[in-house]
Amino acid sequence: MKAVVKTEAGPGAKFMDMDTPEPGPRDVLIKVKAVAICGTDIHIMEWTPYAQARIKPPMIFGHECCGEVVKVGDQVTNFAVGDLIAVETHIPDETCFMCRTGLQHICEKMLIIGVHVDGAFAEYAKIPAVCCWKLPKDTNPDLGAILEPWGVAVNGILKGEVNNRSVAVFGCGPIGLMGLGSISAWGASKIFAIEPAEARLKMVHQFAPDAVLINPTKQDANKVIMDATGGRGVDVSIDISGSEKGIQGTFKAVRRGGRVSLVGLPSSPIALDLTADIIYKEAKVFGSTGRTMWQTWYDMQNLMDSGKFDPLPVITHRMPLSDFAKGLDLAKSGQAGKIIFYP
Amino acid sequence: MKAVVKTEAGPGAKFMDMDTPEPGPRDVLIKVKAVAICGTDIHIMEWTPYAQARIKPPMIFGHECCGEVVKVGDQVTNFAVGDLIAVETHIPDETCFMCRTGLQHICEKMLIIGVHVDGAFAEYAKIPAVCCWKLPKDTNPDLGAILEPWGVAVNGILKGEVNNRSVAVFGCGPIGLMGLGSISAWGASKIFAIEPAEARLKMVHQFAPDAVLINPTKQDANKVIMDATGGRGVDVSIDISGSEKGIQGTFKAVRRGGRVSLVGLPSSPIALDLTADIIYKEAKVFGSTGRTMWQTWYDMQNLMDSGKFDPLPVITHRMPLSDFAKGLDLAKSGQAGKIIFYP
Amino acid sequence: MKAVVKTEAGPGAKFMDMDTPEPGPRDVLIKVKAVAICGTDIHIMEWTPYAQARIKPPMIFGHECCGEVVKVGDQVTNFAVGDLIAVETHIPDETCFMCRTGLQHICEKMLIIGVHVDGAFAEYAKIPAVCCWKLPKDTNPDLGAILEPWGVAVNGILKGEVNNRSVAVFGCGPIGLMGLGSISAWGASKIFAIEPAEARLKMVHQFAPDAVLINPTKQDANKVIMDATGGRGVDVSIDISGSEKGIQGTFKAVRRGGRVSLVGLPSSPIALDLTADIIYKEAKVFGSTGRTMWQTWYDMQNLMDSGKFDPLPVITHRMPLSDFAKGLDLAKSGQAGKIIFYP
Amino acid sequence: MKAVVKTEAGPGAKFMDMDTPEPGPRDVLIKVKAVAICGTDIHIMEWTPYAQARIKPPMIFGHECCGEVVKVGDQVTNFAVGDLIAVETHIPDETCFMCRTGLQHICEKMLIIGVHVDGAFAEYAKIPAVCCWKLPKDTNPDLGAILEPWGVAVNGILKGEVNNRSVAVFGCGPIGLMGLGSISAWGASKIFAIEPAEARLKMVHQFAPDAVLINPTKQDANKVIMDATGGRGVDVSIDISGSEKGIQGTFKAVRRGGRVSLVGLPSSPIALDLTADIIYKEAKVFGSTGRTMWQTWYDMQNLMDSGKFDPLPVITHRMPLSDFAKGLDLAKSGQAGKIIFYP
Repeated sequence: MKAVVKTEAGPGAKFMDMDTPEPGPRDVLIKVKAVAICGTDIHIMEWTPYAQARIKPPMIFGHECCGEVVKVGDQVTNFAVGDLIAVETHIPDETCFMCRTGLQHICEKMLIIGVHVDGAFAEYAKIPAVCCWKLPKDTNPDLGAILEPWGVAVNGILKGEVNNRSVAVFGCGPIGLMGLGSISAWGASKIFAIEPAEARLKMVHQFAPDAVLINPTKQDANKVIMDATGGRGVDVSIDISGSEKGIQGTFKAVRRGGRVSLVGLPSSPIALDLTADIIYKEAKVFGSTGRTMWQTWYDMQNLMDSGKFDPLPVITHRMPLSDFAKGLDLAKSGQAGKIIFYP
Repeated sequence: MKAVVKTEAGPGAKFMDMDTPEPGPRDVLIKVKAVAICGTDIHIMEWTPYAQARIKPPMIFGHECCGEVVKVGDQVTNFAVGDLIAVETHIPDETCFMCRTGLQHICEKMLIIGVHVDGAFAEYAKIPAVCCWKLPKDTNPDLGAILEPWGVAVNGILKGEVNNRSVAVFGCGPIGLMGLGSISAWGASKIFAIEPAEARLKMVHQFAPDAVLINPTKQDANKVIMDATGGRGVDVSIDISGSEKGIQGTFKAVRRGGRVSLVGLPSSPIALDLTADIIYKEAKVFGSTGRTMWQTWYDMQNLMDSGKFDPLPVITHRMPLSDFAKGLDLAKSGQAGKIIFYP
Repeated sequence: MKAVVKTEAGPGAKFMDMDTPEPGPRDVLIKVKAVAICGTDIHIMEWTPYAQARIKPPMIFGHECCGEVVKVGDQVTNFAVGDLIAVETHIPDETCFMCRTGLQHICEKMLIIGVHVDGAFAEYAKIPAVCCWKLPKDTNPDLGAILEPWGVAVNGILKGEVNNRSVAVFGCGPIGLMGLGSISAWGASKIFAIEPAEARLKMVHQFAPDAVLINPTKQDANKVIMDATGGRGVDVSIDISGSEKGIQGTFKAVRRGGRVSLVGLPSSPIALDLTADIIYKEAKVFGSTGRTMWQTWYDMQNLMDSGKFDPLPVITHRMPLSDFAKGLDLAKSGQAGKIIFYP
Repeated sequence: MKAVVKTEAGPGAKFMDMDTPEPGPRDVLIKVKAVAICGTDIHIMEWTPYAQARIKPPMIFGHECCGEVVKVGDQVTNFAVGDLIAVETHIPDETCFMCRTGLQHICEKMLIIGVHVDGAFAEYAKIPAVCCWKLPKDTNPDLGAILEPWGVAVNGILKGEVNNRSVAVFGCGPIGLMGLGSISAWGASKIFAIEPAEARLKMVHQFAPDAVLINPTKQDANKVIMDATGGRGVDVSIDISGSEKGIQGTFKAVRRGGRVSLVGLPSSPIALDLTADIIYKEAKVFGSTGRTMWQTWYDMQNLMDSGKFDPLPVITHRMPLSDFAKGLDLAKSGQAGKIIFYP
């Protein structure tokens, strides 16, 4: 089969022939229908320190994917050939304290598809059954491929309720946009979207029509939020930017007794005024990573089924997998939404 | 002033002249702009055992009201002449364990306006400042008068989240209808409305356009719900009927691990299959009474401000207070939505 | 091997030779070290309607057990020959909504060891690896055998916090006693134990030295509780009796805004005054069944490791498995605590 | 009356005659029986920037106090002459969103006794009734005086449950010590106390006999905690140090999915590795300030009544109020526990 392979410890990757993998007893083999680019894939392509610390070439990368089951391991009972599945990227060990108390997604011995084991920039991929989400047969595979990043937003959003709450989202990249759409569908009373890139900010109203748009390079985000909330701040403040300014803004925006969810991943330590921003306010702060298995996936399926929100507009480019280098360049530029490859 | 007075221990009431009350140091005096009929008022009019146990004539009854402040006690700092207010009916003592731990609405020494002290079927009413909710000046007084019953629904609904949850509501009287509208605005993924009175059921789509309508005298409510939820049941099941069948249906409808809110008040004990319906399911059951002070009122104000839901269509009749007997008869018939009196 | 077998659809059982079971790929085979009698075993022995509805003879019953792993299926990675394990009786299907959202113990397709599949009144038992809890090697197997019933109490107790809370426990059979010991170790501020059987009541202080003992056939339980709580009632009220009087007492005892956990299984519907006991009080009621997998087991292990509570005194009789009929008679008499068989 | 007065904007204070205050309609006047020194008092004495920003001389400071009611305002119904009370330092405005939703202690317009209004380093003090906690008549006034700082610990501890949880406390000053005693009484399964000052560390076992003592200047605190928790970290990690190292240690110590409470107040921003310490771990972080009104006070009263913990040993010095300068010097040295003045 054809696959995108990191062949050696350095920048770049090759589109080349690889053996089609054989599923183990608790795996399925899928024919990949659509696979999206994640920021992690750019790290791997560029061979950043993040990649150097984790990737052992040769390895197929890519992990946000949707495919059809074509082979089933003999211990697998809940998936069958022909099933359309989306892939949960995190492989839990199923035996640690976290896995045994409903928190598989923060497994103590987590492996990641496309990082620690071969991924899905390929015609076929071997996926542990414990990482498969069965989709209705008529689901658009493009949608199946972006459930994984959408779930990153949903997991952070639903660390508490948003119904009838005022919510600020810092960072309107693809994950932020899908998050804003979800928040809007789930009945937030007031939504603020904060994003310095004007092109992204302009996309917000496609997802959350009533959101107040704030470009913090042009406006004082905190002032806008305080003015619109009677000086109180928002009930729920979510960072999906991972940036220092975004995170600091997230803490400033939340009201006393309010909730902060941290979703974006800062690459270095951030200085926080804990006394003013967490302690005196009695803020509640929730770290959020990946997707809660499987509550987050049920949450996404519920929302898709309700017809109240369609995340597909977050996809701005589609191309054959052989154009992987072009796609990864485009993703790196920050000028695109989600980019889909078809193997 | 003119007022509707229960003059003696027996059925009936008189529309008569009474002294305008004088507010104490922590009260306000309001000019009543609109006052709605509650089921309690019918009990008082009819002199049911419920009324006999509580009412000490002579007493002005009526309590779902909206008015304008015309006098302010000298210890009151947060209300001023000219303010438009809605009235919280429950007077907390402010000193008991409940009041001192954020649960004033279940005060151990609660008094009720229009039950234990004079109410609002009158031109003027004396209201403790601790029971006043300030409305934006341009609020329709009719809306102000129905916040109290709407809040009964909201309090029960928001004992947990409804965003993205499947929700069943048993009982579509005025409180149920306003509840359904709120649930719809707050992003429930699927809504079921169960009501035997066809006229009420027909009103549901004005409030929750996507609700599945179920008349349990014509359909097997549980079967409809189970079929629509893959046999699992709903995440959240709310009784607002207070009837034995409604309550039993509420417990049957909820999924394992799901949430039940009990809002309707049954008049006698109900036999429940606790083993099947609560224990084996690990259902979570929340009693709900009145309105959480003041979270419920903020919740209503948020929803009004968001423009996503307008409860006014629940009002079907409006008349002068002098027609109180006609209004109470109509309310008793069960053929009306909310009925508003103007003093 | 020797085993206690329900050979046909009727009362009684036989102690007889059976084939030693062969573990499947995801099972382990254990040599049973100790196995305790559960109420379910009495149902099976007596062939009650409960048993008739569930048991398909021939079947080995018994399920509260501790054993040593002697064989391991080839897909099992987290258990090894020589491990000492306690058995979780509930076999989750691992694929349903409940199993996939951290609630395996209320799996939609639950099977029960010793009810739906062969159990542990035998020299050897085949146990799915997903039902095994690994114990420190030096754990007393008697203790290992009673973790399962102890967990029934723990699951109900920890539906909320008990630290610094006043707690009433209705029903002081073996599960109630172990629950009382746990509650005491976990820092409840005040404990009430309510039990009509004087012999059981007398055992309470071995488990919860500071508990107030109440025999409801001699005292007005509610009056005692109200007098001792300033008329307020307890923060947490737990029924482990399953009896109508116990359950009604549980609801009467809880304070406004307090928590009720229902653990005991009533055999028929119970009439509850929902208005007074749940709705006006805004009680929070939690059904509890089995043991949360695996939080409850970690909770028990933590408590054992802390040295603050030893449930072993709940065991009053020990005998060889060949005396099963005598043991089951004794258990049925209600005169014993836990009874342990050694195969 | 005699009082300690900050007479002008600069270091120092005077012990001098002042008019005995007259209570307003909703105040009480107390005769101060015992008053303890808080860190805030040292700020005021030293005229630090914290004090300069808040204090308007002339002002009586001091606020951790216990006294007997000697006069009652005419609107006060729940306190009477002769009552023994402890003082909640935070004066809520009772009308803001926080106050009206059960969060008076984080009132948007909070005033503080002894900071914004006259305090209790005096023979008499005027206290708003809304800030009074009635004690049993036979309570030791010394104990009454330290409830306020003890409550600071309790509020942070009970942001979640500690029963059967492993808990680390960073910082063993007086508040930390009282916190450790509470945690021990409330059934934590394992306790770690981390404190660089050896003298304080030595006091821990008086409060929490089973705590593991860690001096981070001599041991690697994180290593000790990880070794003792199987590499997982603690369920609950609480900072009461307010120091950079303490706070960073607090985040390192908590397990995935665990809870952090921040109680100590850092004086400048702290750099946190949010990705590793909050996000990937999905830590839940709760800011905590003051005492929840009035849940925290009920929590303390429950614990006092249970007889399981006595915080009095935290008091190391007692002296007449006229020795205030000596007492404040001693407190500043860090060599003392709580110091009590008697006016």
